[in-house]
Amino acid sequence: MTGDGAPRKERNGRIREDDFVLALRRIIGDGTPEVLVGAGDDCAVVRVGERVLILTVDMLVEGVHFDASRVAPRDLGYKAIAVNVSDVAAMAGSPRFGLIALGLPPTVDAPWAVELYGGMREAAGEYALSLVGGDTSRADRVAISVSVVGEVAPAGAVLRSGAQPGDRIVVTGALGASAGGLRLAAEEPQTIGHALGAAWAHDLIEAHDRPVARVGEGQALARYGATAMIDVSDGLALDLSRLCRESDVGAAVDLERVPVAPGLGELHRLLGTEPLGLALGGGEDYELLATIPAEQAAPAAEFLAERFGTPLTDIGHIRAERGMVAVEADGSERPLEPLGWDHLAADAG
Amino acid sequence: MTGDGAPRKERNGRIREDDFVLALRRIIGDGTPEVLVGAGDDCAVVRVGERVLILTVDMLVEGVHFDASRVAPRDLGYKAIAVNVSDVAAMAGSPRFGLIALGLPPTVDAPWAVELYGGMREAAGEYALSLVGGDTSRADRVAISVSVVGEVAPAGAVLRSGAQPGDRIVVTGALGASAGGLRLAAEEPQTIGHALGAAWAHDLIEAHDRPVARVGEGQALARYGATAMIDVSDGLALDLSRLCRESDVGAAVDLERVPVAPGLGELHRLLGTEPLGLALGGGEDYELLATIPAEQAAPAAEFLAERFGTPLTDIGHIRAERGMVAVEADGSERPLEPLGWDHLAADAG
Repeated sequence: MTGDGAPRKERNGRIREDDFVLALRRIIGDGTPEVLVGAGDDCAVVRVGERVLILTVDMLVEGVHFDASRVAPRDLGYKAIAVNVSDVAAMAGSPRFGLIALGLPPTVDAPWAVELYGGMREAAGEYALSLVGGDTSRADRVAISVSVVGEVAPAGAVLRSGAQPGDRIVVTGALGASAGGLRLAAEEPQTIGHALGAAWAHDLIEAHDRPVARVGEGQALARYGATAMIDVSDGLALDLSRLCRESDVGAAVDLERVPVAPGLGELHRLLGTEPLGLALGGGEDYELLATIPAEQAAPAAEFLAERFGTPLTDIGHIRAERGMVAVEADGSERPLEPLGWDHLAADAG
Repeated sequence: MTGDGAPRKERNGRIREDDFVLALRRIIGDGTPEVLVGAGDDCAVVRVGERVLILTVDMLVEGVHFDASRVAPRDLGYKAIAVNVSDVAAMAGSPRFGLIALGLPPTVDAPWAVELYGGMREAAGEYALSLVGGDTSRADRVAISVSVVGEVAPAGAVLRSGAQPGDRIVVTGALGASAGGLRLAAEEPQTIGHALGAAWAHDLIEAHDRPVARVGEGQALARYGATAMIDVSDGLALDLSRLCRESDVGAAVDLERVPVAPGLGELHRLLGTEPLGLALGGGEDYELLATIPAEQAAPAAEFLAERFGTPLTDIGHIRAERGMVAVEADGSERPLEPLGWDHLAADAG
């Protein structure tokens, strides 16, 4: 984004997360031959003997990534694991081992912490991840750092950087549900009391609280020849722009094909939130966004539907020309801005 | 410590870190055959194909583990890496890959963050650790989580649990310097202005700001048959009690043999702090505390002195009877309390 590698400040004086990460990659950059992919992708890829490991870490901070007064500790623990597993899924890897570092305020009581770990264990069980250790220390606010070691077939990791002009852009599941759930949960219960009992509202909030990591789907997409992959953590538009930047290509997204999550129509009627806006920029969907040779898109979609019950939607194509465009139903194009959920700049959700 | 596995609260209502970790081990406990050692030792030990990996994670929180107004960001970055490498050293492993998760307040400016990473890179270079990735997010206070993946020869990891009655207890380097440096740095400069220019004072503060991880020494101790090992992060007495608990043994420590760091005499004259108290309970020394068959103690000490210039001091022996005793110069014994630096309960340093 910046040409000189120095983090560029936003108008409010904060450093944008992507610029910051780019600057750090120059500092950290590592030429060791065992490091196949260093900082900058969803995970690092390293070689250990005959095996190829993928390594990822994430930090969730109270008041930034979650509201401890709203979220149940069990859901929080579950999500902390799932979002890291999602990073492994986005490389077409299998999660293997997890490490947890926890900062807890003195006000946290034992049942809360036990519930938190219970949720972590629940997610770890679902994804066959062995939780092998951790560190607990005091903090002012709850901070949860999860590291995951995964494994991938040699040369099997799908990076962000392999997209080719002509590839189709595909995405698993539906988008915007998590952001819709967050939006809904932020409302005062008395104003939307009747809606909270509805299945669509429950599903939106569930999507935010308990995201699903698409591990099997990621590996299947790799087998169908996916050329690049990323998980949608910060919104389709922003994450697609990252994939395009790493691949040095552009993208055209057919807006009418973007899979908008069920329930966003009801949410729109209730709160006026634009479904497509949430789907394009909402973030925390943890669906997989991949590019795939055109002839593989349909067979891959058929396989994912049959094997996992997961829709795979073709939403556009990769172009040689850089930059992203949104294509309207009538074929007209307009620039698609890479706006999304920027954790470094975002206010507490 | 507790019999029923429930975290026991201290009188002030906080959960003691050790009890908490014990309770979590029951929750997290993992029976996967690839997990050779799970939560509870310095690191986890896992098998990946033919290789044996050691995994560790740590979290440093502003106001708990460091005072951002005092410590230089470069030193902070250096220490964040070194203390995790020390955990790998305490298993007789080699550090290989590092992952960093960083929570930064909006007030942090780019030069500060770049210095922080510069210090991390400096330490990573010293310990041949490849920094392969990370995550940056917003936080109220600086939080730094470092995960390290290390490697160890199959069956070569030295755990906390192998100490045998009759083994000698040995410790590398000298103890108490870090706590002395922290104590000194907490004084108002005007009250100790003359001392701050002295080499001994500089050395104490340096010991706190830039601890040395004993990687080569740990591997050498393993070759000399060390039966158990831990790094002294929370004070000799507390860390020895952990080693004894895991090994189901007791210990006798010859107080006059405990290697008190140079400079603590001067500190005592200046501030009245008891040198032996700092050496026994100060914490953050990151020296290695090991048990070793009696006949190997002297040869190991000779090798460490020659190869690394690191003293190895024989400070006592392991006994079958549980509990720890301090042995005075006249041979009299008194109980040695496992008091130390308990991060969960400690106030900000």
